[in-house]
Amino acid sequence: MNEKKILFVVLDGGGDLPVSELDNLTPVEAASTPVLDNLSAKGLCGLMDVLKPGMVPGSDTAHLALLGYDPFDKYIYSGRGPVEAAGIGLVVHPGDIAFRANFATLKNGIIIDRRAGRINKRTDELAKLINGREIDGIKILFKEGTEHRGALILRGPGLSADVTSNDPKVEGWPPRPFEASSIEGKRTADVLNKLVNQLARKLPLLAANEERREQGKNEANYLLVRGAGEAMLLPAFGGKQGIKPVCIAGGGLYKGVATLTGMKVLDVPEATGGIDSDFHIKVKRSLKCLDDDSYNFVFLHIKATDNAGHDGKPLIKKNIFERIDSALEPILEYKDIVIALSPDHSTPCSLKDHSCDPVPCFITAPGRRTDSAKKFGERFAMQGSLTGIRGKHFMNLVFGLANRNKKFGS
Amino acid sequence: MNEKKILFVVLDGGGDLPVSELDNLTPVEAASTPVLDNLSAKGLCGLMDVLKPGMVPGSDTAHLALLGYDPFDKYIYSGRGPVEAAGIGLVVHPGDIAFRANFATLKNGIIIDRRAGRINKRTDELAKLINGREIDGIKILFKEGTEHRGALILRGPGLSADVTSNDPKVEGWPPRPFEASSIEGKRTADVLNKLVNQLARKLPLLAANEERREQGKNEANYLLVRGAGEAMLLPAFGGKQGIKPVCIAGGGLYKGVATLTGMKVLDVPEATGGIDSDFHIKVKRSLKCLDDDSYNFVFLHIKATDNAGHDGKPLIKKNIFERIDSALEPILEYKDIVIALSPDHSTPCSLKDHSCDPVPCFITAPGRRTDSAKKFGERFAMQGSLTGIRGKHFMNLVFGLANRNKKFGS
Repeated sequence: MNEKKILFVVLDGGGDLPVSELDNLTPVEAASTPVLDNLSAKGLCGLMDVLKPGMVPGSDTAHLALLGYDPFDKYIYSGRGPVEAAGIGLVVHPGDIAFRANFATLKNGIIIDRRAGRINKRTDELAKLINGREIDGIKILFKEGTEHRGALILRGPGLSADVTSNDPKVEGWPPRPFEASSIEGKRTADVLNKLVNQLARKLPLLAANEERREQGKNEANYLLVRGAGEAMLLPAFGGKQGIKPVCIAGGGLYKGVATLTGMKVLDVPEATGGIDSDFHIKVKRSLKCLDDDSYNFVFLHIKATDNAGHDGKPLIKKNIFERIDSALEPILEYKDIVIALSPDHSTPCSLKDHSCDPVPCFITAPGRRTDSAKKFGERFAMQGSLTGIRGKHFMNLVFGLANRNKKFGS
Repeated sequence: MNEKKILFVVLDGGGDLPVSELDNLTPVEAASTPVLDNLSAKGLCGLMDVLKPGMVPGSDTAHLALLGYDPFDKYIYSGRGPVEAAGIGLVVHPGDIAFRANFATLKNGIIIDRRAGRINKRTDELAKLINGREIDGIKILFKEGTEHRGALILRGPGLSADVTSNDPKVEGWPPRPFEASSIEGKRTADVLNKLVNQLARKLPLLAANEERREQGKNEANYLLVRGAGEAMLLPAFGGKQGIKPVCIAGGGLYKGVATLTGMKVLDVPEATGGIDSDFHIKVKRSLKCLDDDSYNFVFLHIKATDNAGHDGKPLIKKNIFERIDSALEPILEYKDIVIALSPDHSTPCSLKDHSCDPVPCFITAPGRRTDSAKKFGERFAMQGSLTGIRGKHFMNLVFGLANRNKKFGS
């Protein structure tokens, strides 16, 4: 069989709802997207529940599902910490517990800024204070991420992810104590409580924070920790299909998922993971990877659509779709590859958060069938033959249409 | 997020098949239903398999599925008895076995009337004879229901639902002996055989039966018992979604399901559970509940459509849909709630029984998407985006569209 190369594009949070400013169209329905329309018309489309009907996907669980992993299996997914850690480049070993961490600003025992003024300098000095500590025989590993973010790992005997967070999730409240959510979590909660208390005494003394105080900025004098999870030991992505995958993404989470599935993650500085990301460069790099026989699968992640949804900006979201569409134009020249595209979830501008609404997706494969959907967008995709498909089946279908799945039976 | 209140309407047995007297339309397709059409056009529609494709749902299993419980889990559902008992107001404890019971007429050892002339008076006197007995250390509880119906509970050690029924299901045959269907059912079968034999001797002696004999009516001199099931300990309906549910229904079964899921069941005398039910009053009471902040979820059950299906009366069924539609009109004023409607199963007039044919349903939620289905009915719903959904996902989708589901992952 003629096995095809695959380009898989995720438009993060791309699904949306009808918007009155856009004549009750969704942002992508309202946008002029000739390239996405062309690919939709040539391929199979559908409205897809990424997890289950009615369920609101997180970005982590949604990406796992789209890549064919079962996020409901607790050995696949037990929390976001390990994904963030992988994205930052920390390796979580079996038995470790990994967390997402934020530098925050505490004043008179109250969290006044959960992001410490989105601190983006000298966080390596803060990390150095944390990384390498040992508490009650448990080793602490820490690495800074972008801005106020970081990943924390506890390593040692008797740990568990059954532990609550110290993050009250809103400002104006004191941090919460870590608590065990089962008997197994006791030791982990104790270590975390000791750790944040030690840091609360020592972080203000660092030169980096002295500088922030002098500049009138919120200092990074406290550590908020959440998303406890165990090591994720995922089977290699596309291992049975001969896939040699590469990921181009800005955000740490997506790089993390890619790393955990065994993808090579390219360093593309123009991929910022924000609205200012250079989509043209990301697409060019993707196509270059497809030209190169080191790879036969490119996972291209675009985050900007999600940001516009969270910000509640439908006109900006529409414009982002148009910028993405224009950037995607060169892929029309690649007539012998399978092109699959899907949001990971809907982030409707009217709700400013993830929602349960299914996402429009398509798979365009050379020589395969077409269906009734002739444009890209929620209402158009609904007409397509993939409507009703679940996220967990999407990648297997992509592999199948790339002639990469073996017969089951004979 | 802006959490919405929910109105959930079940049109029992509402699905049907093309009928020649109705120009090969189904009863609801033939009916004039402007309100259901309006709600369908504004929302998402679909043809739904309530259990699995090809499977014929019972009313009990279908309602459990629609409310999000898995009827294939034997700890959720092991038989109809416990549901009937709950509907009548009997509480089934763990270890109890509950049954549905009918008063019947036995003559010369033959069942000549399985419903004892649909006896509807003095059944409390008959119940008194049964309730409180004790046989071989097993306590007998009994409560009369509507007409010839009642619920029976056995309480004590060593009981099991693995027991056959004494009901031959047709008249003109003798009752069957109860038999154990596994080794565990032996004691239960023995107690039941002793019980019905005791009652066969004592029931004819009661004054209530003397009166029936004088009036030339079939006497209630025998007890048919079926639907053995264990206690159903269901998690509270919508417990994770902050649901405060209330049920408005006529039939005991539906009140039973509602009770078992922790719903408040309103006493509405005009809700008869029959063709004579006052739909206008039921809808008014439903809307009053939605106006009241004690509730945020109304389960409104309408049985008449099923009765017309069982009777094989398509013109009456069509007319019932028109009466229901007219009664539903005031809900169009409630623009900020989620309105979900589904039959529990099809009861085609041509088959006079439940069938496997999927049911037309819709969910209309403020600010959400619409799809291609513009009217209510089997062939119209088929065009909608929910086609392919299963009953077990329906309520989760309703919760999601009411902004009541939490993110899975982050």
